[in-house]
Amino acid sequence: MQNEQLVKDLQAILGSAKVLSEKLDLLSYSYDSSFMARNNRFVPDVVITPTSTEEVSKVMKYAFNNNISVTPRGAGSGETCGSLAIQGGIVMDLATWDTIEEIDAENMQVQMRPGVIHAELNKRLAEYGLFFPPDPGSSQMCTVGGMVANNSSGLRAVKYGTTEQYVLGLEVVLPNGEVIVTGGVNCRAIKNVSGLNLTKLFVGSEGTLGIITKIRLRLWPKPKARGILMAVFNDLEQAPQAVLDVYKGGILPSGIEILDSSAIKAVNEYKPDINLPNAEAILLYELDGNPASVKWEGEEVSRIVGLLAANVEWSTDPQRMSELWQGRAVTATAAARVREDGSRIFAGEDISIPLNKVTESLKKIKEIGKKYGIGVVNYGHIGDGNVHTAPVINPEDPEEVKLGAALADEIHLLAIAMGGVTTGEHGVGAVRSQYARKEHGAALDVMQSIKRTLDPKNIMNPGKLLPEEGNKHGTSTSSGS
Amino acid sequence: MQNEQLVKDLQAILGSAKVLSEKLDLLSYSYDSSFMARNNRFVPDVVITPTSTEEVSKVMKYAFNNNISVTPRGAGSGETCGSLAIQGGIVMDLATWDTIEEIDAENMQVQMRPGVIHAELNKRLAEYGLFFPPDPGSSQMCTVGGMVANNSSGLRAVKYGTTEQYVLGLEVVLPNGEVIVTGGVNCRAIKNVSGLNLTKLFVGSEGTLGIITKIRLRLWPKPKARGILMAVFNDLEQAPQAVLDVYKGGILPSGIEILDSSAIKAVNEYKPDINLPNAEAILLYELDGNPASVKWEGEEVSRIVGLLAANVEWSTDPQRMSELWQGRAVTATAAARVREDGSRIFAGEDISIPLNKVTESLKKIKEIGKKYGIGVVNYGHIGDGNVHTAPVINPEDPEEVKLGAALADEIHLLAIAMGGVTTGEHGVGAVRSQYARKEHGAALDVMQSIKRTLDPKNIMNPGKLLPEEGNKHGTSTSSGS
Repeated sequence: MQNEQLVKDLQAILGSAKVLSEKLDLLSYSYDSSFMARNNRFVPDVVITPTSTEEVSKVMKYAFNNNISVTPRGAGSGETCGSLAIQGGIVMDLATWDTIEEIDAENMQVQMRPGVIHAELNKRLAEYGLFFPPDPGSSQMCTVGGMVANNSSGLRAVKYGTTEQYVLGLEVVLPNGEVIVTGGVNCRAIKNVSGLNLTKLFVGSEGTLGIITKIRLRLWPKPKARGILMAVFNDLEQAPQAVLDVYKGGILPSGIEILDSSAIKAVNEYKPDINLPNAEAILLYELDGNPASVKWEGEEVSRIVGLLAANVEWSTDPQRMSELWQGRAVTATAAARVREDGSRIFAGEDISIPLNKVTESLKKIKEIGKKYGIGVVNYGHIGDGNVHTAPVINPEDPEEVKLGAALADEIHLLAIAMGGVTTGEHGVGAVRSQYARKEHGAALDVMQSIKRTLDPKNIMNPGKLLPEEGNKHGTSTSSGS
Repeated sequence: MQNEQLVKDLQAILGSAKVLSEKLDLLSYSYDSSFMARNNRFVPDVVITPTSTEEVSKVMKYAFNNNISVTPRGAGSGETCGSLAIQGGIVMDLATWDTIEEIDAENMQVQMRPGVIHAELNKRLAEYGLFFPPDPGSSQMCTVGGMVANNSSGLRAVKYGTTEQYVLGLEVVLPNGEVIVTGGVNCRAIKNVSGLNLTKLFVGSEGTLGIITKIRLRLWPKPKARGILMAVFNDLEQAPQAVLDVYKGGILPSGIEILDSSAIKAVNEYKPDINLPNAEAILLYELDGNPASVKWEGEEVSRIVGLLAANVEWSTDPQRMSELWQGRAVTATAAARVREDGSRIFAGEDISIPLNKVTESLKKIKEIGKKYGIGVVNYGHIGDGNVHTAPVINPEDPEEVKLGAALADEIHLLAIAMGGVTTGEHGVGAVRSQYARKEHGAALDVMQSIKRTLDPKNIMNPGKLLPEEGNKHGTSTSSGS
């Protein structure tokens, strides 16, 4: 179909204000934070901004009848090309549809449209003493719809799990335009074992099975207190041990973060004032709960970790907590500035590995980096084994771009060899589907058969999450990942 | 196929020791705890007890090629006919396959075969200071395989969620005999967003999509302390308010249980020594965590609930806790003995309703009971709205059996009308699939299309969870439910 006709048809459905087709508009929808999007431009044919289920349904019916690909998009803060129209077609921008429809505090839940910003939601919920626990780094910009589609998590997954744990139900527009409600039509129950669990199938499906148009989330009482503990280690192997010993002590912190020597160096170079101790690793524990609990656990974790660490500091003072956390807060930015001519790339950056393989994995990643002559900054959620490994290259140098891609590939394969997976929270998108066969074996065939069943024409975000059908080895032809 | 041939073929696959075909053996596999099984005998054609993935796979290939139904079974402690061969065929008893393959304490997880008993697992895990939090009433007998298939929960779901929250991966034998591993082949990671979430699709699928042959569970540090608070209310409406007020106070107890006046009466008649105060409702809060936290929360919950309740008692003394809990511990048994000539039936017994509709629902259930002249004993997990409503009838009286079924139907429809669902934890099985269309609307079609995709010959536990295909209204022809 010619773009002109496509635009006209969509204008007829949505009105012209909700259809973007100017070149500059389209260009601004052609990238996300991924390395792949840095090396390619995936310009959609048209962008639309529907704000009702009816509009989404009409568009999907039209797309289905005309075999046009549709890629849903939240804030575009992803790192996997997940919201880019890599095969062209329609990008459906859902970020403007940001209504919190009902905070049902009496039933500990909220209903909202996909475009609500995570931080905004928690600000509103705080008025009721409630919160939605997952805490992605992109909280200030990412949409809850995007979080559901990617099953996002972040700093607090150790104790609070990932987004899926809170999704009670979804309204979904299927590829053929039909509208379903998962988790029970008109349901406000918290516990529900009726029927197949479609809700959790859609969570993390990255827009490949349908468009999420409404979200019902379970909420938790907001804890009244928190504290931060910083521990400094002279031996990398002590770091995972210091995680495990705390668990053995019967304590589940809300988060446990690591900065290894590469991240410590990056932070000190970026902000010398922070002046992190030169060490093999720094761990940051966040403890939350009631005030008595936080005090008790702070003392206990200090004692347990103190047996291993060179230095431990514990604080519940807001000012000091913020100082202790400062190094972690700037790590991502610091990693991006390790080299004058360099930039941190989002490739091979989200591995999730078993806790007892963290030390070995980080050492091997250091070696792999050396082999390619590329620095890798390691930090992230050690409490659940989800480590962010950030290669830093000169993205203007085609040779380094090639080396960066090869390095990311080795990191991914290392994660799988270590009994881990290529992605703990950022997702698969177009950049990691080539590992699907290795990661899932025959289960990939079941995933593909479900995809075919729900999306027989393969119009929902094609080329994402699963390798394209007909590609028996599950390898991808995508470049620059 | 003649049974004789079927038995011979299975003996050839498994050896004769693993094939049961004596009438008495088959009879002992013809019931569970459900009301429906009381009124019907679903005798399987043959029972097998495989103890390897290879055996299960061979049987499924054989069953697939010969169009024979297969019904997986754990301990048979269910209340929905879920593990009964209601259309005949093979019952696959997985309870004898009870190996804990590896407690991987370093990675906070365990791998096991489906027949492991829940209480037995937690006994073993306690040696490592770990536990698997869900706590079904049938803990001493139910299998973890059954818990996964039914997404079981129990007393601690308020804080710890249901079984699904802990399932990291499954080995599943598909209806055609193929073996897949969900959550990553050889994976030991805790966090994983790679691929479609097949794990959570199989959890709660009640044996309708495949046979679960291996389970990988995430574990939690076992909390070091707990306490019990009992609160007595003269007005039923105060009970849900006393739940909500505690949440508003920033506290999430591990469990909040209710006994309404009907349950209090039942307990006092069954065990006069327990001598529960005559009241409209009794709430029991269980608080767990570190010792300081439990003390703080015990005092705080006492204060909050004390503003509403006629009487509050809080204890961390093991002896006193056990006394306070005693009434709740015997409720199910007491309910079964409310009448000399009567028995508690498992029908309409597991509704899950929004917290703000609990009072209204319990009052209406009392009225419905009166209309039918049948007493209903109400108790259960008010913290998440999952109330067990136990009708007590004379099961030998055909007229009462009919009335009991009609009453259960009204309770189920009431739950849906209140914004709830017919089952919070016991499952659908053969006894609640007639409500699927009302509960799920068009989403039921998607569930059925997934069922068709994975089980094209409809041999996996047919007649369970979803209404049979071709039945457009989603109504069931099952009797006595």
